[in-house]
Amino acid sequence: MGSDDLSAMLMDDDDTVKTFFHLIRHPADIKEAILTVNAEEWPRLLGLIEEVDRQAEVISLLDEGDRETLLKLIPPEKLTPLLREMETDDAADWIGDLPTQELQQKALAGLEQSDREDVAGLLLWPEDSAGGIMQVERAQVSQMSTLSETIAKVRQLVDDDLEILSIWVVDAEERLVGVIPVVDLLMHKGQTLAQDIMVPPVATVKPLEDQEAVAQIFRKYDLISLPVVDENQKFLGRIMVDDVVDVITDEANEDALRMAGTSAEELLYRSQVLSVAKIRLPWLAINLMGSLVSAFMIYLFEPVIEKAIVIAAFVPVITAMCGNVGTQSATIFLRGMATGRLDVTDIPEIFSRELRIGAIMGLACGLLVGAFAYIFFPVGDSVDPAYLGVIVGLSMIAAMTVSAALGAIAPAGMKQVGIDPAVAAGPFVTTVNDIIGICIYMGTAIYFLDALTHG
Amino acid sequence: MGSDDLSAMLMDDDDTVKTFFHLIRHPADIKEAILTVNAEEWPRLLGLIEEVDRQAEVISLLDEGDRETLLKLIPPEKLTPLLREMETDDAADWIGDLPTQELQQKALAGLEQSDREDVAGLLLWPEDSAGGIMQVERAQVSQMSTLSETIAKVRQLVDDDLEILSIWVVDAEERLVGVIPVVDLLMHKGQTLAQDIMVPPVATVKPLEDQEAVAQIFRKYDLISLPVVDENQKFLGRIMVDDVVDVITDEANEDALRMAGTSAEELLYRSQVLSVAKIRLPWLAINLMGSLVSAFMIYLFEPVIEKAIVIAAFVPVITAMCGNVGTQSATIFLRGMATGRLDVTDIPEIFSRELRIGAIMGLACGLLVGAFAYIFFPVGDSVDPAYLGVIVGLSMIAAMTVSAALGAIAPAGMKQVGIDPAVAAGPFVTTVNDIIGICIYMGTAIYFLDALTHG
Repeated sequence: MGSDDLSAMLMDDDDTVKTFFHLIRHPADIKEAILTVNAEEWPRLLGLIEEVDRQAEVISLLDEGDRETLLKLIPPEKLTPLLREMETDDAADWIGDLPTQELQQKALAGLEQSDREDVAGLLLWPEDSAGGIMQVERAQVSQMSTLSETIAKVRQLVDDDLEILSIWVVDAEERLVGVIPVVDLLMHKGQTLAQDIMVPPVATVKPLEDQEAVAQIFRKYDLISLPVVDENQKFLGRIMVDDVVDVITDEANEDALRMAGTSAEELLYRSQVLSVAKIRLPWLAINLMGSLVSAFMIYLFEPVIEKAIVIAAFVPVITAMCGNVGTQSATIFLRGMATGRLDVTDIPEIFSRELRIGAIMGLACGLLVGAFAYIFFPVGDSVDPAYLGVIVGLSMIAAMTVSAALGAIAPAGMKQVGIDPAVAAGPFVTTVNDIIGICIYMGTAIYFLDALTHG
Repeated sequence: MGSDDLSAMLMDDDDTVKTFFHLIRHPADIKEAILTVNAEEWPRLLGLIEEVDRQAEVISLLDEGDRETLLKLIPPEKLTPLLREMETDDAADWIGDLPTQELQQKALAGLEQSDREDVAGLLLWPEDSAGGIMQVERAQVSQMSTLSETIAKVRQLVDDDLEILSIWVVDAEERLVGVIPVVDLLMHKGQTLAQDIMVPPVATVKPLEDQEAVAQIFRKYDLISLPVVDENQKFLGRIMVDDVVDVITDEANEDALRMAGTSAEELLYRSQVLSVAKIRLPWLAINLMGSLVSAFMIYLFEPVIEKAIVIAAFVPVITAMCGNVGTQSATIFLRGMATGRLDVTDIPEIFSRELRIGAIMGLACGLLVGAFAYIFFPVGDSVDPAYLGVIVGLSMIAAMTVSAALGAIAPAGMKQVGIDPAVAAGPFVTTVNDIIGICIYMGTAIYFLDALTHG
């Protein structure tokens, strides 16, 4: 069934939809079906899912953007019963996205006592930190628990619908001291103590650690879950791999979209072209300003162009190549940061490396384009093609070297001062490189102008 | 300890390094230490890890590129004992990367009988397919097994060092019929049959499914593992989430680097600037050709520029904006594909959407730049600023609309004919948009030329 048929069916009479939802086994499939229709219909469709806990499951699967959209469409009193059915980390995400402090307090008050404290605690951490993506629900036992006690605890948690892959072991001060994979519970006798079969956790994180760093730890150690502890090793919660999968996807999306001068928000507005244009326009406007500076530079050099119009012909060649090498350098830096292969201590090395790579590529492209300009390019009688080659070739070498270095250093610099480097890596670098490239090119042209026009 | 200190230490005397490696708990940390020094030293350092199974663990953690580098440095006879210690999916990756059929056959022959068939089977699937990333080791029982038998089986596999999170249940024909989370083994009595406690698998994939589609299934259903079955539902193996985490990271890297006109290979050559330049240059050379077409276009329009040099000044404005809108459209398409929000059936919709968004943004930027050219830009006495505004503004509207549409359709078209769309989304779109933008701009200038220069 195509998504068109599906949305047509979902706009149909309520009973058909109810039956359809009832037949779907996994809530993720219901979520996907609902996302095929316009957001205005979401509250109605959610109401057609039979049980409240299933409704809660479906909406807890929504991405951040879709969550914000839905929050605008459902009244607070309809939200409360759903929040009660959610896991604490999902409830915290929803409450954290409510527009006012007052609504947040009200939503918190609607939760059960025990959940309320957990959720309030989770709301303290930034959304993109380890604390922001951890769950407080977990299987936790004391190191002095026997295997029988541990298994009894696990059974009870499974009855409460908690997904359990490992048991966390704490000491008398609630400090995390070890972990027991569930499968190991099958390997020992009932009187064995937790501390005798536990292994130390492969890694732990502090709650304020950035979610990108968390993803790198998961990747490095091939983890399924990662415990979060405070500065005294007190056990706060666990981060599950499925949330990390989302983090990696979201960060890759964000980087790619920022580089293109837009944002992840855009993915929400499938068919609202005006909203999308509004998200993309600010960057275009800033770059329009930048390119007007380029235009002004060229205007300043009008006397040069007047003497040899062929000089104007090579402007797009210079700007295109500067833009390309700059983007290459910036992309390498960005991906290196995202995957943990590079960090800020590497910045001087990256800069010098990109400078040298830029010089090599500039030399190759400069020689090529210089030779082309000299041999093949049709010039009038008043222009010496040899000097055209020299001007285009030399300025290409210089401009590409500078552009590659700037491409590497601009995102690195932004990272240092706390701005998202992906913002720098796209149109910003391209525009600045345009201006620098034009200045170098025109400067070189002026220097050789007399020779170019046969003196 | 910084990575510089670390590599200095690893170049030190062998005994120090041996002790250092011995003290490291997780093989991932040894791998990371080894990666800080030049590849030539890797074989020596690996030899300093005490046990062969730990050596095998360390090298099985290497990325594809590092694996290829190491394969060039170690002799085949040293590889064989390591391959014997690896899991079948890792062994298949290593053997698949050996340069000749002969070496592959030899390496296969070096494995134990049982592994040999599994690895040979795995080698049949493409590297980036579900079959290429699955493991054949797994906990599998018949649906008629009792819980006691199942637990006995699990114990034996754990003794063999297999990581077990769920038990797969098959029927008499080895068809996958269900799955039992390990924790559920704690919930029932010894004589219960597997078929009574199993649940149907949330999803299955065929072995030829692309790894990006596999990642989307993991993301959608928040999976830890996913079974691979053939067309008769016969159970072939399982894909683990940690491999999917790597897939998502690799695919994001690949897309970003291809868009910048380079490749993931580059990440391997940290300090070899010549090798990096060689990877980046082909795209730059192709784009150099493209930009020379731009230069030629401008040369063709020399009479226009001769009459009004100010026309040349706005060339970088037009090309910059065409490049930016094109990249925005292409990026949205690419990320939509990568995250599964878009598929090929959406192409007509995306095209028409980007066309409309491009027109809106073109209108906004065209009006802005037209007004700027008319009001602020210094023009000589012979040029009418009003017509300059009309020329720049109108051509900006047309060029941006076309560029946005091309940005969306070029990667989509490449996807349709089986070329990686990321290749199209970067420099290709920018270059073609440059040429189109210049033609539209110059065409408009010719149309209004008499009016522009006061007739």
